[in-house]
Amino acid sequence: MNIDMIHAAADRLKGHVRRTPLLSSPFLDDIAGRRVFVKPECLQHTGSFKFRGGWSAVSALDPEVRKSGVIAFSSGNHAQGVALAAQLHSVPAVIIMPSDAPAMKIDNTRALGAEVVLYDRATEDRDEIGDRISSDRGLTLIKPFDEPQVVAGQGTCGLEIAEQAAELGITEAEVLVCCGGGGLTSGIALALEAHAPAMTVRPVEPEGFDDVKRSLQAGSIQRNAALSGNICDAIVTPAPGHLTFPIMQRLCGAGLSVTEDEALRAMAHAFARLKLVAEPGGAVALAAALFRAKELTGDTVIATISGGNVDAPMYARALDFA
Amino acid sequence: MNIDMIHAAADRLKGHVRRTPLLSSPFLDDIAGRRVFVKPECLQHTGSFKFRGGWSAVSALDPEVRKSGVIAFSSGNHAQGVALAAQLHSVPAVIIMPSDAPAMKIDNTRALGAEVVLYDRATEDRDEIGDRISSDRGLTLIKPFDEPQVVAGQGTCGLEIAEQAAELGITEAEVLVCCGGGGLTSGIALALEAHAPAMTVRPVEPEGFDDVKRSLQAGSIQRNAALSGNICDAIVTPAPGHLTFPIMQRLCGAGLSVTEDEALRAMAHAFARLKLVAEPGGAVALAAALFRAKELTGDTVIATISGGNVDAPMYARALDFA
Repeated sequence: MNIDMIHAAADRLKGHVRRTPLLSSPFLDDIAGRRVFVKPECLQHTGSFKFRGGWSAVSALDPEVRKSGVIAFSSGNHAQGVALAAQLHSVPAVIIMPSDAPAMKIDNTRALGAEVVLYDRATEDRDEIGDRISSDRGLTLIKPFDEPQVVAGQGTCGLEIAEQAAELGITEAEVLVCCGGGGLTSGIALALEAHAPAMTVRPVEPEGFDDVKRSLQAGSIQRNAALSGNICDAIVTPAPGHLTFPIMQRLCGAGLSVTEDEALRAMAHAFARLKLVAEPGGAVALAAALFRAKELTGDTVIATISGGNVDAPMYARALDFA
Repeated sequence: MNIDMIHAAADRLKGHVRRTPLLSSPFLDDIAGRRVFVKPECLQHTGSFKFRGGWSAVSALDPEVRKSGVIAFSSGNHAQGVALAAQLHSVPAVIIMPSDAPAMKIDNTRALGAEVVLYDRATEDRDEIGDRISSDRGLTLIKPFDEPQVVAGQGTCGLEIAEQAAELGITEAEVLVCCGGGGLTSGIALALEAHAPAMTVRPVEPEGFDDVKRSLQAGSIQRNAALSGNICDAIVTPAPGHLTFPIMQRLCGAGLSVTEDEALRAMAHAFARLKLVAEPGGAVALAAALFRAKELTGDTVIATISGGNVDAPMYARALDFA
């Protein structure tokens, strides 16, 4: 896993993946007490950065292998990213999703042409279901983060951050990344190591589901006690990956964590100040930028908004803070 | 008023005004029955295209004249556009706003450093108030649409549409523009006449406030019967301008109009499919693209989202359609 793979992914993604802008608002700067830039991956195809990794992985497959199709496990954003990447490559996709995933994410995955197989998190073994389907049909598993071509795809977001910041004359910053298993975080960290070495990536998670923060503190992979019970569904994962953790350990600063209310308030600020729809898990980095100023250093922070796939009732909760 | 002024405005705007992306979603294509592209000026500084015209006009003033300051009449988006343009030029701005303008727009205008003077639409004469203040202080009036440098600034949005469409191989399209007094509409029409002559601009208005549509039909300027009573406050204006109407008459196709519910439904689709916050008046063009397919021609439509400055309670009404 190295920067050359990210460059190669960028070549494969060109013309297919959206170059999202780098946005700002003087109102956010005032709240944060420093300059805040936002990288809105909610504007990416399928509404999250996951399309980068999905396209990267599907496009890297041998065409003979690819034509049998792909399979993924996902509560939603990786599902949509892989589904669209497969659809655009004209190959089948099967997505194994928990039956309690947000309705919008299940509907969208189906609408993007994938076959969705739902399972009950409490009573069924998703791995068993997935193994059976993929061996029956010869499907290739696209893992959500612990897969080099997926990390390479997410890293292209970091290439854009480095370029866009340089255009603004910015070379030093803390780069806050919404962090689940660490695919986006480690990909951006590798890209910045090569192209903006004075920037430091800091993973941001929901309080109580801060496995990456604790793993970085402990120097070894720590797991979350629970896998549900937080509105930031997109970034609640069991533990950092075996591929992603060593990269984060080598390159990232300390992790940060924010409350559910802080995530909702950040969504309200994205609504009012940036005119962007963020989902709870996609808003944790902006929340840290705005509300955890004392835990940050330097005069510039760049926050990813990693996704915007949120149902209307949850969004209404955020609007109560607007 | 000609294309050279738009090119000159683009030079003055460079590095100050955001180049907004051109977005799309397969879900919107399905609803519309043709390819739909969206130009999201809600992502522009101050949350609407008005910053283009504001910057263009303020930057075109003689520095000696400019330093005394500027004044504008506006219910909100022009107010914010002029306020930020003045602030960034370090000159004072006075904005005359109706006391019933959306709270967010009044608050933001003040926060952008402008002196806001509120008046009661029913009992006070805004022109009398404005004349008194500007003659006392030597302020220059920046009109919202019937001013060549403002139209030139809005026209830069058309330059970007022509470039971005060409990059996608698109040269023919109907370009739907949210239309109040016609500043954005006529500016885009002039830009496309020069750079994408096979595209046709079509103004879109709220039903019952379709002065431009009726003016184009009649071949002469028609006025709206009322100036309030529609949620699309940003684009409810008395009549097309004396500068803008002849341009629209020469270059535009027939006008379209949509209902308030259609505007709210379009806002819900922008939320769900594009992760963009649109205000009601900023969503009428997308509404026409999605719900008035029979009134359109060709296989491609480009819809502006002209602004996203909407209060949370109004946005909650749109979410009911999501």
